[in-house]
Parts: sequence; structure tokens; C-alpha cells
Amino acid sequence: MQVDLSKITKQGRAMFLAYDQGMEHGPEKDFDDENVDPQKILEIAEEGQFTGVIFQKGIAEKYYDPKINKVPLIVKLNGKTGLRADLDEPYSPPLCSVEEAIGLGASAVGYTIYVGSQFEGKMMQEFSVIEQEAEERNLPVVAWMYPRGQAVAGKENSREILAHAARLGLELGADMVKIPYNGSKKDFEWVVKAAGKTKVVMSGGPKTETREEFLKIVKDVLSVGAVGVAVGRNIWQDGEPLEISRKLAKIVFL
Amino acid sequence: MQVDLSKITKQGRAMFLAYDQGMEHGPEKDFDDENVDPQKILEIAEEGQFTGVIFQKGIAEKYYDPKINKVPLIVKLNGKTGLRADLDEPYSPPLCSVEEAIGLGASAVGYTIYVGSQFEGKMMQEFSVIEQEAEERNLPVVAWMYPRGQAVAGKENSREILAHAARLGLELGADMVKIPYNGSKKDFEWVVKAAGKTKVVMSGGPKTETREEFLKIVKDVLSVGAVGVAVGRNIWQDGEPLEISRKLAKIVFL
Amino acid sequence: MQVDLSKITKQGRAMFLAYDQGMEHGPEKDFDDENVDPQKILEIAEEGQFTGVIFQKGIAEKYYDPKINKVPLIVKLNGKTGLRADLDEPYSPPLCSVEEAIGLGASAVGYTIYVGSQFEGKMMQEFSVIEQEAEERNLPVVAWMYPRGQAVAGKENSREILAHAARLGLELGADMVKIPYNGSKKDFEWVVKAAGKTKVVMSGGPKTETREEFLKIVKDVLSVGAVGVAVGRNIWQDGEPLEISRKLAKIVFL
Amino acid sequence: MQVDLSKITKQGRAMFLAYDQGMEHGPEKDFDDENVDPQKILEIAEEGQFTGVIFQKGIAEKYYDPKINKVPLIVKLNGKTGLRADLDEPYSPPLCSVEEAIGLGASAVGYTIYVGSQFEGKMMQEFSVIEQEAEERNLPVVAWMYPRGQAVAGKENSREILAHAARLGLELGADMVKIPYNGSKKDFEWVVKAAGKTKVVMSGGPKTETREEFLKIVKDVLSVGAVGVAVGRNIWQDGEPLEISRKLAKIVFL
Amino acid sequence: MQVDLSKITKQGRAMFLAYDQGMEHGPEKDFDDENVDPQKILEIAEEGQFTGVIFQKGIAEKYYDPKINKVPLIVKLNGKTGLRADLDEPYSPPLCSVEEAIGLGASAVGYTIYVGSQFEGKMMQEFSVIEQEAEERNLPVVAWMYPRGQAVAGKENSREILAHAARLGLELGADMVKIPYNGSKKDFEWVVKAAGKTKVVMSGGPKTETREEFLKIVKDVLSVGAVGVAVGRNIWQDGEPLEISRKLAKIVFL
Repeated sequence: MQVDLSKITKQGRAMFLAYDQGMEHGPEKDFDDENVDPQKILEIAEEGQFTGVIFQKGIAEKYYDPKINKVPLIVKLNGKTGLRADLDEPYSPPLCSVEEAIGLGASAVGYTIYVGSQFEGKMMQEFSVIEQEAEERNLPVVAWMYPRGQAVAGKENSREILAHAARLGLELGADMVKIPYNGSKKDFEWVVKAAGKTKVVMSGGPKTETREEFLKIVKDVLSVGAVGVAVGRNIWQDGEPLEISRKLAKIVFL
Repeated sequence: MQVDLSKITKQGRAMFLAYDQGMEHGPEKDFDDENVDPQKILEIAEEGQFTGVIFQKGIAEKYYDPKINKVPLIVKLNGKTGLRADLDEPYSPPLCSVEEAIGLGASAVGYTIYVGSQFEGKMMQEFSVIEQEAEERNLPVVAWMYPRGQAVAGKENSREILAHAARLGLELGADMVKIPYNGSKKDFEWVVKAAGKTKVVMSGGPKTETREEFLKIVKDVLSVGAVGVAVGRNIWQDGEPLEISRKLAKIVFL
Repeated sequence: MQVDLSKITKQGRAMFLAYDQGMEHGPEKDFDDENVDPQKILEIAEEGQFTGVIFQKGIAEKYYDPKINKVPLIVKLNGKTGLRADLDEPYSPPLCSVEEAIGLGASAVGYTIYVGSQFEGKMMQEFSVIEQEAEERNLPVVAWMYPRGQAVAGKENSREILAHAARLGLELGADMVKIPYNGSKKDFEWVVKAAGKTKVVMSGGPKTETREEFLKIVKDVLSVGAVGVAVGRNIWQDGEPLEISRKLAKIVFL
Repeated sequence: MQVDLSKITKQGRAMFLAYDQGMEHGPEKDFDDENVDPQKILEIAEEGQFTGVIFQKGIAEKYYDPKINKVPLIVKLNGKTGLRADLDEPYSPPLCSVEEAIGLGASAVGYTIYVGSQFEGKMMQEFSVIEQEAEERNLPVVAWMYPRGQAVAGKENSREILAHAARLGLELGADMVKIPYNGSKKDFEWVVKAAGKTKVVMSGGPKTETREEFLKIVKDVLSVGAVGVAVGRNIWQDGEPLEISRKLAKIVFL
Repeated sequence: MQVDLSKITKQGRAMFLAYDQGMEHGPEKDFDDENVDPQKILEIAEEGQFTGVIFQKGIAEKYYDPKINKVPLIVKLNGKTGLRADLDEPYSPPLCSVEEAIGLGASAVGYTIYVGSQFEGKMMQEFSVIEQEAEERNLPVVAWMYPRGQAVAGKENSREILAHAARLGLELGADMVKIPYNGSKKDFEWVVKAAGKTKVVMSGGPKTETREEFLKIVKDVLSVGAVGVAVGRNIWQDGEPLEISRKLAKIVFL
């Protein structure tokens, strides 16, 4: 009944390199002359023991070759820019079909739902169609469950809302949910419980001040049941991305 | 001409265990460490003589196995979170197709229509397509007919609006309607009459203060023509869910 | 070129029993313990010489059996509740397909267009698709042409607007239009002329104070070219529905 | 590459009898006891040497017989009523498919785009689909290009806006555009130039005070490159429609 | 994995003649008696060594003959008029399908996305479908990435927003992006980097005061990695379009 997650996990653990920030934030905010180049990211993903690299379809098309690349590809199926963040409740339209993702060599697909947004229902509905299509092809679905919008303003990091987001992922049929961590192990334990048989990975978030801080957080969430982490900026904004990848891998894998 | 309801009834009576609250309310409000786990609910449904267990598709996919589980599955085809309850008139988008529900082993499907909402027409239209698809496959359709929104504010529990909701279910082709009880047997008798050949089950609602109170209500609605009850919190929030299930079954079945 | 109307007429005249009020008004307003039951209505239609009975699909599914019932069935393909009448311009979404109606044994289909409403264009467009599908199957289409909304407020019963509504029915391809009567034979004569080869039946409207009043109106509209009447409340709210039906038939048929 | 216009032209010239006013204006404004009858219009079109008669699909279905009628049929594929003219920016929804028009015996199809309206883009998009379907069947497409709405208020008859409207017709793939005349030959010459290989016919507009006025206008637009005229009220509101038709034909044809 | 661009480039360089201004601006603003004629533009494109000419489908249908014309055709698949520029955030609806463009002889297709507009997401979604269809047929997709709307007002020409626009093109799967130049070589170098393997052509923009100014700009953008230019008004508004084309070609090609 359950989709096979072995292609995007190792020892049941997930370590994903996220690189879908270019569409959302633009290059100015997150990238430098090095990490603006998807080829560099792909190399980090390959050499850094990641169990998946996350691209929008355009980057996958032009950079990822399933015959050459060994790191599993996770195609993000929806997305938006953050340009109107101050004007609209967030909505992320579908930009790639399951069929297309499979053609690009995807081992899984990703989808964002902004929990609490005015367009939450629309995203839930569009996700449900994607989920069905992926299910039929035995392709795992990872749901980015992010609390956003006026209805949850100020409560985005509360135990209540994070657990609701995780549970929503389970109820909608996600195989994995990517959830922000609010810093409380006890809360995250409840989040993991709420997700039931849907696996939980922590969303890496913005770069922490120190590596130690980041690695500590990863340890914490793993200790209360998360199966891994989807991380971007804490890797490729690091001066030595392979070194921090190695340190991360030591924590994630046994 | 009429769909066969025998798979989700016993002696013409229905006793459904509802467990779609996680999506709507989130785990914080309704769940504890025990009942947050769908497996526990499934066990109650199996052992408690229920004639149906109600899940969203995600839970059905990961927990319900038609080869093993004996309690009939009712897949809820639409849903929403309650996060924007203070901001929007309620709308519940379709999240699962009839085809998908059948693939999950469903013996019936459920659908919510918020009667009186600004989006009432949209839900009626989407329901009508679902209804046709289910009809063609001889799959019973249970309609959650809930008065909501500014147009019926303060009248949600009136005889007039409840009867209108029940009648709307009949006119739209529902095989069964799930309707809240306003405490008046006389009113509910009229509700049942308005529904005609469409069967009526009482919506269990929030947990009552005492078991007796709940069981008394069930007796009352059965005495005026309802064929049963769809109950969640009054069962799985009870300290001894199997015991209350047994007591309920004694009332529902002859 | 023209659809055959003989299945829903006798001597070129139409006498339809309308029973789609339950969805719009709810049982409270229009029904009593007797006429809340569709079976009773069907009996009146059968015995009262009606050339058609008008049901929403849900009622047709559960009560009308084409193998047993002799009165022709007219399935109303769209509908709404009136709960938000004070809040929205009226819109009636499609709730049943032509295919479905044929499966239920329909001899014709009905469709409401609220002429003047903000959603007039949407209803015209949806109607045009229905009309094409029905045309291809030689199924007559009866259009409820009702002036409504801010744009025609206070003019709903004017010769100008009623004739526009009737003409719109012709231009859209309706085989018959159901139009309210404003009490002026001269105006209705113009309405009938505006409809051209599209036949006109009078909408029965709310119950008149006396039977004589109602029968007089029917005579009047027939005398200026209407082919009949679609009547509900003036029949089934009458103390002796079969008697008033007989009186009506004497006027409608020659 | 270009669609064959010979079915709706004579000597390269077009003289169309427009009769789609009943839907837009209603019978009250434009019609009398005679011209309210589509049969009368069809007779004028047949006997008056018109190279096309313009009907909405409903009128075509009930009055036009391709086996009997010789005047080519142009089916108007979209339309609206003018009832909400004071309330909404104009939008004209599609009401008939290309397939349906062909089934009715159409030699061409017509489509209105309200240039400058809030819904301009929607109409352009819907037109583009129609245009493709007609193109594939070698059916000419005549576009009613009418400046309307707040954005062009007061400039509807300017050289700038009329030329933009004509050009838009060319860019969208119309084979012919129907454009209002602002009284300046020099401006209309530019309009014709802007339309390039897309032919231009003048929109007849409301009835002029005298026949001479109307005929003078026709001469003027032909002299600067228009290929003809689509005229309604100046013909069928004339006391002797066949006489004015003959006079018109003398000017249009060589 | 990457679409072959050789049909619309020479020596890896692109020199496109843009002529989709008639729909957006109307003839009044941009055209004179000469350049209003698409035939003239086609001749300039043929003789001026352009590697592509950009038309809306209507112009392509009536003027471009793939059997005769040698300059590659780029069909612009969406478009709008600028009439409501002061009233709405910009949105450009799809007006031509990939299938249709191929039928017209297209060697590539073009699509506008107004980055920052309220309708950005809708355009991204519609583009993504087009992109998939074109990809499957190995047809290159050129994306016009134009910052517009309240969210980016005053920042349309900033390095940050232009680089975001270019990057969005890459993430969405465009093979080429057409981007305005803000006058800073350093900024454009970053823009080109942000676009990665997606090629960048400069948008020609409004006519510069002198030819030298225009040619200097072209040199500058090529020197920092752009592969060419899509230019309209600086060519066909020039008194001697073939001469300026020759001068441009000398810079673009090696």
C-alpha cells in the first residue's frame, strides 16, 4: 500500500540537497559566483553522499543526466517567486507534470502547500491530483508543508500549527513531509507523531550562524523521529560544502 | 434505481466511525497520544461492530488494507482545514476521485456540502459529478450536509435550515445524508421526512459531557427515522472506546 | 431542424407539473406532510393528465421508474438554493448532465437562466453546451427564463424585459421557454412573438388566492399563443390536486 | 495559407445582413411586428442579394435550412445581452462551437471582441481557439472588433483605437474584421492599412436619419479599401427593405 | 537533454527581427505607411541576415510561407494589447498552440512572462505547459522575461530583478530568455550567469536616438555573454533598415 522510499533514502534516512531557491528568492539574495551554477551544486550532491538533489524542471532538463548522474533527482513540481510576498497570500502553481518529471529521471517529486494561506484549498486540490498520478507510478511524493498567511501569522512555528501541517500531509497522501523546526524537540516529537506513517524531514531553513548550530539541530530532530533533512543554504553557502556535507552525513547515517 | 446500501449497513442501520477530524481541526484540538494514531482507530472500528470507518485518502492508503481489514471503508472525497474559519466562507475542495477511492477498497464515499456558504453552488456542482461517477459504479454516496456561513448564521440548527439541508441531499442524489441534530425529535422527524428515500444519519458532533447524554441522543434520532449515526470524538475520545462502542451498537442494532 | 416536442405535449399543448421547489425554497416554505413526498407528486402527475413532471436528478433517481411511470420525465439540469438570495446575484450551476438525464428516462431537460444577473453570461455559456448535447440526442430543451438581479430590479415583469428573456431563449436554441406572466395579455402576446418558433409556457408562480384566478390566467396566456403551463404550487398545494388538475386540463387541452 | 472567402463574397465584395441584435438589445428596442420574425429577415437576405446573413445559433437552427436557403449563413459564435451595460465591462461568452455552426450549414463564423474591455484578454484567448478550429476546416472567421470599456472611453471612434482594433484582428488571425466607421475616410484608410491582408467590412450601426446618409457612408468606406458592409437596422428597419437592399447592392457590387 | 538552437542561430549567435508590437501598441504609435505592412518586414528579415522573425500567429498565417520564406519563423504564442496598462497588472493570455505554430512553419516559439505581476503565477503555469509541448517536439522556447507591476515598480531595471527574471527563465525551462538591458555591463554579466545554460538575448527596446548608441549597446551585451539581440523598432523605424541590419550583423556575427 505504501510507496517504496528506498530510492531516496539510505538506511531509512534522507539527506536531500535543496536547490529550488533561485526561483523563489532570485540569485541576488542567496547565490554567489560559485553557487549560482547548478553544475556546482550537482557536484556537491554527487560527492556529498546526498540521497537526493532537489531541482525545478528547467534546471533538471539542462543539467541533470540520468545516465551520468548518480544522486537521485527530486523534481519540485510547483513554485513561485517571492516578489509579491508583501501583496498576496502565497500560492504556488503547478509547473511540471509527473510524466515530465519521470522523463527527466526523477526518483521522487516535491510539492509545496502553504498551510493557512487563502489559496490553501487550491494547493491541496492540485496536490491531490499530482499525488494520485505519482502513486500510480510508484513515485514518492514529498510535500513541503509551510505555514503561511494571515490566518497563521505569528503562529507559524507553534506546535499546534506545525503538527497540523504535518498531519495534513498524511491525510493528503504525502509519503514524506518537509517541515520547519521550531527548536523544541518535544514539539517536533508531536509533529512526527501527527504525521504517522508519513516520514518527516526537517526543512533546512536559512543559514545558521555556525555549523555546530546546524548540526545540533539535525541531531535533535533525528532523535525525536525525523528521518532526515532537506538542506540547501547551510551546505552550498558554506565555504567548504563537501566538508559540512560529510559532517552532516555522519549524523544522518548510522 | 437505488444504490445498494447493504455493504455499509447492518439490519438497515448504520454505525460509522468518523476519523476525518485531523485534517479539519489538526491534532492539537482533538487528538492525544493514543488516538492520533490511525491504527488505533482502525482497531476500534474493527472490534466495535462499526459498519464503516471514515478516512481521508491519505490515511486509507497507508493504514487500510482491504485484504486484511473487515470494517467497510468510507473515503471522504473532499476536505479542508479550519485554519481560515474566521476569514472565509467555508469551501471544501475535492481531494480524491471516485476511481481512487475504489482502488483503496472503499465501500462508499463521503462528501461535504456547506449549505448556505458563498461556495455552496460550487460544492453542489462538484458533488454532482462525484455522485454521477459513484452511481455508475454502484458505490453509495454519503453527503455531509452542514449549514454554514453568513446566510444561515444563527439559524444553523433551526428546523427550517436542517430540513433544507436534508432535502438538498435528496435532490442532489445523495444516498445518505449526515446531518447535525438540534435536540428536537419533532424537528428531526421533519428532517427525515424532507430527505425522503435518502437515508439520514446523525452527525456525532463534539464530545458530550456524559456517555448517557450521547446515547440518549442516538436513541432519539433513531426513534424518529434516522438509520444511524456517524460518530468520532464520542468514541475515540472516550476512555474506553470499545465499551462505549458496544453500548452504542446495542442501541443502533436490534 | 426542429426537435420533436410530441413526447412532452398533447395536441401541441404542454401541461407540466413542476416539483423542483424543494431545492430552491426548502421544505419549510412550500411543503406539508403530504406534498413533501415525491411519490405523492408523481401520483398526481400520472393521474392528472400532465404531459411532464419536473424533477431534479436526485428525485428522479429514487422515485421515477421509466418502466413503470407513464408521465414523461423532465429533468432539471441546474439548480441552487435560495439561501443567499439577499447576498448574491443569482447563479444556478449545472448539476446533471444530458447523458445522466437520458439514463434516468428523461423525455426533455430543463435549465434556468437568470436574465440580467451578474452571472447571466456564465449561465448562457453553460446552457449552450447543454443545448448542443441535447440537440444531438433529439431531446427537447426547456429554458426557465427568469429576469433577476440588480440590472433589472423593478423591471422583472415589464413587457420589455419579459420579451427580451423570451427572445434570448430563441437565440440560444431553447425549444421551449418558461416565462412568468405579468398579467397583461397584450404584453404576453409580444413575448410569444419575440420567442418565434420557440414555444412558450407560462411559469405557474406562487399559489394564487383562488383557483378561478389561476385558471383565468392560464386561459389568458393560451389565448395569446402560449402552448401551456408549468405549474407546481397551484396544484400540489391545493386541497384537491386531482380536481384542480382536471379543471386545468380542460382549459389546456381542446 | 489564406482561407477562401469566395462563399461569403461576390466580386470580392461582402454585403452581410446582420440579425444578431435580438440577443443584445432585446425585441423592444429594435424590432416591430414584422422584423421580429426571423423568417422575414431571411426572405430579405435571400431576395436582397446579400452575400451572408448573420444569426445566432438558435435562430439558425429553427429558421435556416441549408437545403432550401441560398443566402450563405454566418453563425455568430458568441454573444451577450446588454442588460448589464451600466454595471460591467463588456464580455461576450462563446455560445456555439465551430462544429455546431458547420452542422447548421454555416459558410463562415462571427465573433465579437470588445477591444479595451477588462475582459479583452479572455475574449482574445477564446477567439484564438475558435480561429484555430475554423482555420482547420477552411471556414472564414469574421471578427467584430468593437472598442468598449473604461480604458477607451471617449476614444472609441478615434483613428488610433479603430486602427488598433483592426490590427488586433489581423494579429489574431481573423479573415475579416467588422469595424465601426467614424466618418473620416482618411482615418478608415489607415484602419484598412492596419488590417493588412485581413479584409475590412464596415459595421452598419444604428439607423441613419436618411437612406442617402447611409449609402454615402458605404461609398466612402469602399473608396478607401473596405470590401463591404455588415448592415442590419438600416435594412430591416427601413419601410422597404428590398428597395434599400437593391440600392446598397448597386454600390457594393460593380 | 538540451533543445537544438541551430535553426535560430548562426555561429551560436541570434539576431531576431521582432514584429509583435502591432498587437501591444497598435499601429498609431509604432508604425508608418511602410512598416505597417508585414510584407515589408518580412523582406527586411530575409535580406538583413536575421536568424529569426517574430510574428503573432495571424501575421504568420497570412504572410509567412515556409515554402518560400527562408528566414526562420518564431511564433509568439501569447500577447495582449496595452490599452488597459493604467488599470490592470499585466497578463498575457495564450493565443496560439505549439501545434498551430508548427503548422505555420515555426522554428521556435516565444512567450512573455511579466515577472512581478499579480498574474505572474498564471503566466508561469501556462508557460510550463507550452514549454513541455515544445520540448517534446524539439522546438526551442524563447521567454520574454519582463519585470512589471506594482511589486517591482521602480526596480524593473535593477540588477536584482533582471537577474531574478533571467533565472526564472532557466528554472522554468526556457531555452532562451529575452531580457531588457539596464546599461550596466557588470549587471548584465550577472544576468547572463544567473541564466546558466539558458541563452540570453537582449530585448531591443524603443528606438535609440542614434544608431551608434544602439550598436554600442549590442556590443556591450555580447561582450558579457549574451548570444544576441531581438530588435524591432531600431531596425524597421530606421530610414534605411537594411543598412542598419548589415551594421548589426557585423557586430553579432564573427
